[in-house]
Amino acid sequence: MKYTVTITIRLKEGMLNPEARAIQHALKNLGFQTEDLTTARLFRIRLDAPDAAAARETARQMCDRLLANPVIHDYAIEVE
Amino acid sequence: MKYTVTITIRLKEGMLNPEARAIQHALKNLGFQTEDLTTARLFRIRLDAPDAAAARETARQMCDRLLANPVIHDYAIEVE
Repeated sequence: MKYTVTITIRLKEGMLNPEARAIQHALKNLGFQTEDLTTARLFRIRLDAPDAAAARETARQMCDRLLANPVIHDYAIEVE
Repeated sequence: MKYTVTITIRLKEGMLNPEARAIQHALKNLGFQTEDLTTARLFRIRLDAPDAAAARETARQMCDRLLANPVIHDYAIEVE
């Protein structure tokens, strides 16, 4: 069956995110006050799997082996 | 009131996404067959606004003025 998995990868809590700080600063210069800003990457992958649990497991392996760096990233997987 | 807006920015339908193709190729080399893969950027911004509609409008302006390139990007805004 075909599944769409959505993988969200973000920096672990407490990791410095200089990109987010730079964006917050640029927004401030444009007059936008923000209290907090975090960034994340989103991958939407369409794949073939026998069931939803297998699709999730495949996505987990993709994260561990390529998409995420387990030292600095947390990831979340949704299967549709 | 404090709101959290989640902004998802992706390339418009039909735009070439060489990064996604490279990731798909790398996944294939690791033995993962994928049918389609798209990437997006996600910003979660905490801000002060009089109501949810105002928070959404502020997020829209942030996209138009800094975060997204209207020529190549679509964006979606969720307010919590």
